[in-house]
This record gives sequence, structure tokens and C-alpha cells, in this order.
Amino acid sequence: MTRKLHLALHPYGVGGPGHHGLWKDPSIAKNASIDINYYIQQAQAAEHALFDALFIVDSQFINATYPSHYLNRLEPLTLLSAVATHTKNIGLVGTASSTYNSPFNLARRFGSLDHISGGRAGWNVVTSFDTGTSRNYGLEEHLDYATRYGRALEAVQVIRGLWDSYEDDAFPADVERNVFLDPAKLHALNHVGEHFRVDGPLNLSRSPQGHPVIFQAGVSEEGRNLAAQVAEGIYAPGGSLEDAQAYYADIKRRTAEAGRDPDHIKIFIHGGPVVGSTDEAARQRAREILAEDNDFDRNVGLLGRAFGAHDFSQYDPDAPFPDVAHLAERGGRTGAARIIARAEAGGLTLRQVVETFNDHRTSPFVGAPKTVADTIEQWFAAGTFDGINLAFRNNADLALFVDGVVPLLQERGLFRTEYEADTLRGNLGLPIPANRYAADRDLVDA
Amino acid sequence: MTRKLHLALHPYGVGGPGHHGLWKDPSIAKNASIDINYYIQQAQAAEHALFDALFIVDSQFINATYPSHYLNRLEPLTLLSAVATHTKNIGLVGTASSTYNSPFNLARRFGSLDHISGGRAGWNVVTSFDTGTSRNYGLEEHLDYATRYGRALEAVQVIRGLWDSYEDDAFPADVERNVFLDPAKLHALNHVGEHFRVDGPLNLSRSPQGHPVIFQAGVSEEGRNLAAQVAEGIYAPGGSLEDAQAYYADIKRRTAEAGRDPDHIKIFIHGGPVVGSTDEAARQRAREILAEDNDFDRNVGLLGRAFGAHDFSQYDPDAPFPDVAHLAERGGRTGAARIIARAEAGGLTLRQVVETFNDHRTSPFVGAPKTVADTIEQWFAAGTFDGINLAFRNNADLALFVDGVVPLLQERGLFRTEYEADTLRGNLGLPIPANRYAADRDLVDA
Ligand SMILES: Cc1cc2nc3c(=O)[nH]c(=O)nc-3n(C[C@H](O)[C@H](O)[C@H](O)COP(=O)(O)O)c2cc1C
Ligand SMILES: Cc1cc2nc3c(=O)[nH]c(=O)nc-3n(C[C@H](O)[C@H](O)[C@H](O)COP(=O)(O)O)c2cc1C
Repeated sequence: MTRKLHLALHPYGVGGPGHHGLWKDPSIAKNASIDINYYIQQAQAAEHALFDALFIVDSQFINATYPSHYLNRLEPLTLLSAVATHTKNIGLVGTASSTYNSPFNLARRFGSLDHISGGRAGWNVVTSFDTGTSRNYGLEEHLDYATRYGRALEAVQVIRGLWDSYEDDAFPADVERNVFLDPAKLHALNHVGEHFRVDGPLNLSRSPQGHPVIFQAGVSEEGRNLAAQVAEGIYAPGGSLEDAQAYYADIKRRTAEAGRDPDHIKIFIHGGPVVGSTDEAARQRAREILAEDNDFDRNVGLLGRAFGAHDFSQYDPDAPFPDVAHLAERGGRTGAARIIARAEAGGLTLRQVVETFNDHRTSPFVGAPKTVADTIEQWFAAGTFDGINLAFRNNADLALFVDGVVPLLQERGLFRTEYEADTLRGNLGLPIPANRYAADRDLVDA
Repeated sequence: MTRKLHLALHPYGVGGPGHHGLWKDPSIAKNASIDINYYIQQAQAAEHALFDALFIVDSQFINATYPSHYLNRLEPLTLLSAVATHTKNIGLVGTASSTYNSPFNLARRFGSLDHISGGRAGWNVVTSFDTGTSRNYGLEEHLDYATRYGRALEAVQVIRGLWDSYEDDAFPADVERNVFLDPAKLHALNHVGEHFRVDGPLNLSRSPQGHPVIFQAGVSEEGRNLAAQVAEGIYAPGGSLEDAQAYYADIKRRTAEAGRDPDHIKIFIHGGPVVGSTDEAARQRAREILAEDNDFDRNVGLLGRAFGAHDFSQYDPDAPFPDVAHLAERGGRTGAARIIARAEAGGLTLRQVVETFNDHRTSPFVGAPKTVADTIEQWFAAGTFDGINLAFRNNADLALFVDGVVPLLQERGLFRTEYEADTLRGNLGLPIPANRYAADRDLVDA
């Protein structure tokens, strides 16, 4: 059997980073990012195209310079619960911060979504990008890397423990014997760790997937180790083919070293394909998108985001890039350090840094449908990804990909022609985790 | 215009307190409490009957003695978001603890629900009944009353501030001028209080209701003062006609003393009507329900709940009620103190306390349809409630009320014959709060 690739849809609403001008597109409602019907429509279109998942990113800090979609958007869990009853097969992955939520609440909410959707929930674990988030939750400073990622790992472990509170046969609901619950099959967790103390049990039974699927996003050393230990999916930035190959190999190696099957972690890279009638038409469109987005003031704001909402508008844009190394140190921000390194290597001014800031977002998947299918096939064969998290500017671009590229991928045996399952695990080829308590008893019985 | 009464539906699922045996009812699916279709069906039935709201209670602590519906139920915000797109007019009130959630997360989630539902969200603010909840959130002890209710008040104030982050005209989305957001209309909160520090702004615009409707449940002195200061609705226990009258008058007085219009706080009492073809048939059914539920072991567990999950099974049931006064002191539990007083006054044994524990749940609304309508009219005229939060054992009981009693209430001009509005505020007759920043500017301009 050919190894199959996976596709997810990351809706941009009125425009995320790198797409500041998207709200002006007349085909997008000005309130798309807060309109549940927009998300239902996106999910249904993606499901019609047999995509694995709808993928919702998130943040909890804004200022006026932020991308339009970030300024005003629905909270992911409420959004996905509403979408769930209007779809049947597509996975529903929501981003939630392990830094600013308590494990008991996260366990309940994702468990509920898994019940509501009949087994299609996924949690994208992030430690929160925006350092300003801390001041919306009573903390003066964003927690440092070690604490954030330590907390993330322990949170996932606690939450998985809570998801196992009930064994699958805990509710005989036997009228004759007058037994609704078999109390021997309800388990407290009694977790005491470095970051959390959680007694449990959870007031919710195991959901159709056993555990919702755990995704992770964050590329630092700590982020990679978290993924290797607990993630079953990753949202990765991608970059050049060599970058993506190196990242892919690194994650699979770390996962194997952690004693897990490297096939049980599905790496999705970000992809914003631009499909045109000809290669040249598509390339021209990609250049226009990049140029349209080159709004200096907004991109200065976005640059600051990587440095803890630092205000770069205070510097002379045509002087050499300012010395902000101290801002990259706090928590060792990976993105910030990368930008400084690039500025130093190229001797760039602030303006040059800002103007090339979004260049890395340029997609490798640009061209006529056949070119895009070829590139995807080549990248896939080269060990750069298991799936692509696709973002489109509007429905017309989505349709160009779905109608033009997907059939080619299907002809080549690279993408499904029907859903394998009605759960996210089933479509991703991930096993249902055994309940830790049921397994323990097997050992005791043996 | 006659003053109109309001009706809400409180779904019992497979059985809450006082309805331990409900899961055995063959007309209720054994998984009703975790089945989103059950809730959608309940909401649609209530909307068909023109009820004001679906009201979802909640808790975050269980042990094996808890009522069946508590053991395994969906989280309210995910539940209500899924129900929202399958209904049009009915309000969606979800219970969430101000003790174990952060204001920023609550503001986003209820704001999202209000956007998703087109203006039908309500938040029932509780400080959490079960003292064991603390150990699911890293705290050894449940916070005491003063702290819990101080936190609740400050949480509501912060959340309302966050809901005002954007003025209503903050997004001109003017393509010609290239202005999506007017940054002067985005406001940080910069709250620093006793319990919370929250900078804001919220990453979500004001929702159709301005603010989701604030409910409150909790009858202590502190609970009443919280209601008087910030609540627009209350879920109250009811009790005898005299109890309900006294409570009603007390709340309206406190609300006026707090400088608010007492008509802008709608008091819903709990009501579990039992409607029969004749008064005697209904009374017989009510007795059967009470008897069926007299499961000593479960009710011992439930009794313990009021004392912080205390294990009363350790005592001789036929000895005088044990001295547990010290358990009622921690945080001054209102319910526990009431039980002790009743036991002392009557010289009751533990068994007698347990056997009469659910008696106060007996509804005053028992009889043939006309009798129930008469009683409701009489109670309503006597100043005992503005609305009733109705719980039915099953759909047949719901239908007996909707088909038998509601038309009589409508004939008498006591209940609507069509929805006044498609928002919860509109149907409850509550004003849309002005945005604090817009109001400030009016003052500055004047
Ligand atoms: C492709 C990708 C998507 C991400 N999506 C989110 C997101 O939606 N919300 C968020 O707070 N952080 C997001 N992150 C950020 C990470 O959570 C992390 O906090 C940040 O990247 C800093 O950690 P790192 O150095 O490990 O990458 C994302 C990161 C990547 C690479
Ligand atoms: C009618 C009613 C309904 C309630 N519903 C809930 C609920 O759903 N969840 C919860 O944690 N507490 C609920 N409470 C409890 C209160 O939040 C409060 O914590 C408890 O009653 C103790 O405070 P008190 O002494 O002020 O009543 C309810 C209370 C009343 C009177």
C-alpha cells in the first residue's frame, strides 16, 4: 500500500499573518472570523474534499497592530462544537494553551468535543506565542521555556489520565440489577507533580477516540521534545525543502528515541498553495499577494510580536537592525533569535528585515495544478511531511486546489478517494490508546 | 400590560439529585447526558413551547455516589455551542464557576457563544458547590465564602469590562480608506484588583447582546449580595410559598438598594411539575417518584455532598444525627447549616434526615393541568418568582406540561404566544448595557 498523505484546512478568516489585506477581498464577509456560518461552510467544503481535519489556531493577546483575523475571532472550542453537528467525518482540531488553562477544564472541554463530534476532536497544544498573554492572566511575565514546556508535558499527562477516569464498561446501566455505574471502574488520578495537583476523577466518560488526538506546535528544542514524548500530530512551519527534511528526520528520530512508533506522529507542514491556469499565472499571483501584504506599519507590529510585543516603530527604519538580543533571551524565543541571526548575517536595516519578514511564508506549492501536484509528490517522497495544513485566501483558491490538484493526488494513489473512518484517529491511522486502568488489570490478572 | 412570566428548561439527562432512579426509565437513552442529540431535542422542544431558555447546571467534582447525570455529562459551553445552530430564539444559559476559571477565558467563551447564537447566551455564575472541586484544581481546600464571592464579583466586573473592549463601530472595514479597525475604539482594561490582574483588551468584539446575560445561583448572604450587585437573573431553590416570597422580596430590595432597577433581575425558582389527568393521579405519581428515589445509600452520599463530600456511611443510621457542626463552619455552608438545624429541631436520626432529605424538592406544581396553572398563577401573583426553571423526568412529562398547562397560562395572558425577540435579553425584557467607553466619550463630549 502506498503511504497516503493527509490534508487539513486552516481557515484564514479575514486574514492572518502575511495576509493583512485579505479583509478587502470582496468575496470574504467582513465579519467572517466571528461568523459561525463561515466556519461551517469551510468545514463542509473541506469534508467534501475528504480532508482529514479543520485546524483552528488561536491566541489570547492582541493590540491594534495585529492581523485582522486575530483581532476578533471565535474561541476554538465553542467554534468547533458548533461545527461538529454540521459535519460527519472531518477531524476538528482546536488550539489551546497549556500555559493559561487548567488541565481539568481542558480535559472536559476536549472530551466533550470528542463526544459531541462522535470521535473527531484534536487538541493542538501550544504554550502561547505572545508574551503579552501573561498580563491577561495575572502574570507579570510570560513563563520561561522550561516552565512552559514542563507544564505542557505534565498537562498532557494529567489530561490523558483524566480521560481514562472511566473504563469503557464502567456503565452497565443494568435495570434488573439496579446498577448504573460499576464503581470499581471509576478511577481517581491522584496526580501530584511539579506543576499540577489534580485528584480526579473526570466527570466524563472516555470518548469515542479513547483520547482526543494530541497535536503540538512550537519548534524549539523543548517543543520538539514535547512532540516526541506525547504528540500524535505536529503543525510545523515547513520552510525550504531542506529545512522540512531536517525537521522531519529530527522529529521521527526523537520520537523513536522516546520509545514510540515514529509513524504515530503525523507531521503537517504549513502550506498556502497558489494554483493558477499556468505556472506563470500562479507565480504572478503569488508575487501580487506578497506585495499587497507589504504594509510596513503592520509588519513592524508583527515583527514586534516575536519579541514580546516590542515596539519597533521607535527605531529609525533605515539604520542597522537594532540590538534587541536581550529581548530574545527571555525564555529564549526561537523566532526572535532567528530574525536577529538573519539581520546580522545580511547586515540588514530594520526596513529590510520588515520587508523580507513574510518571505519565508512564500509557499513552495505554486503553479498549474500538475506542477503543484508534482511538487507535493516530490516533497512527500523526500520525507518532508506526512500532511499539509492548507490555508487559502478565499473559496475560489480553495476550489482551484480541490478541483485541480486533489484529483491528481488521488490518481497517483497519494490521497484517499473516500474516508477510511468517521474518527480523526481512524483517518490519520492512529491507534486508540488503551485505558491505563484496564491495562493494569490485565497485568494483575495475568 | 399584564406582567408576563418566564419559563426555562433544566434538562435532567439520566437523573440529577432527587432522581436517582431516572436512568431506568425506558424512554430515556442510557447515554442521554453525553448525547448532544438529546440536548438538541430538549432545546427544540422548549423552543417550540416558547420557553425563554435552556438552562444547563454544572459541577467539576464527582465520586461514585453522585447522581447519574452528574457522573458523566457534557461541559456546558461546548454543549450549548452545538445546540445554538439548531435553534433560533431560545436562550442558552450555561453554568460556569468563577472560582475555577480565569476571567479572560470565561469572557471569550461566553462572548463566542453569544456570537454563535446570535445573542442568546447567558452565564450562570456559581462559586462551586462541591468542596472537593478544589482538589481538581490544585487547591487543598475550597476557598472560603468571602474569597469565593469576592472573586465572583470581581470576575463579573472584569469580564464585563473585557466584553466592552471594542466599541460597536470599531470595525469600519472601509476598503477605500484602507481601514479595517479604528484603533481609537479598541480599549485595554488594565484591571488590577484584589483577585485579578487583567490588562485586556479581549480579542473578540461586543456580541449581539452587548453582554451575555448574567445569572447567579447561591442563597447565602454573600450570594444574595452578589446577585443584587450584578445579576440579571437568578436560579433560586423556591421552597414553600412563604420561603419564596421572602427570598423574592429580599432580592428585589437588595437590588434596589444597590441602585439598580429591581425589574432588571429575573428570579427563576426551581420547579419540577407533575401533571396528571386528575389531581389525585398527579399526587399519586409525585409520591411514587419520591418513594422510588428513596435509595438510602445514594442519599447518604448526596447528604455528604453538602458537607464537603463527608462520608456519613460511617455512622449508625439509627443513632441521633452526628455532630458535624465543624464541617458546616468551613466557608459557612448554607445548606449544611440548614440540615443541622432541622435535625436538631426535630431530634432526628441520620436515617430520618436522609429519608426526608429530598422532601423539599417536592414541587408545589402537582395536579391536573388547571390545578397546576392555578398554582402557578397564584404563586406568580404572590410575588414568589419572575420565572420557573422547569425540570421534567421525561419527554412525556414535558409534553403534559407544554400541551396542558402552557395554553392555560397563555389564555390568561401570563405567558407569551410568540417570542418577543431573537435574543435572550429581548425575551427577558432586559436592556442592552451601554459600552462603558462609548458612554465615557459621551460625557467627555458633553
Ligand atoms: C506552525 C506553528 C503554528 C503555531 N500556532 C500557534 C497558535 O495557534 N497559538 C499559539 O499561541 N502559538 C502557536 N505556535 C507557537 C508555539 O506555541 C510556541 O509558543 C512558539 O512557537 C514559541 O515556542 P517555540 O520556540 O518552541 O516555537 C505555533 C507555532 C508553529 C511553529
Ligand atoms: C438553585 C441552585 C442551583 C445551583 N446550581 C449550581 C450548579 O449548577 N453548580 C454549582 O457548582 N453550584 C450550583 N449552586 C450552588 C452555588 O453556586 C453555591 O456554591 C452553593 O449554593 C453554596 O453557596 P450558597 O451558600 O451561597 O448557596 C446552585 C445553587 C442553587 C440555589
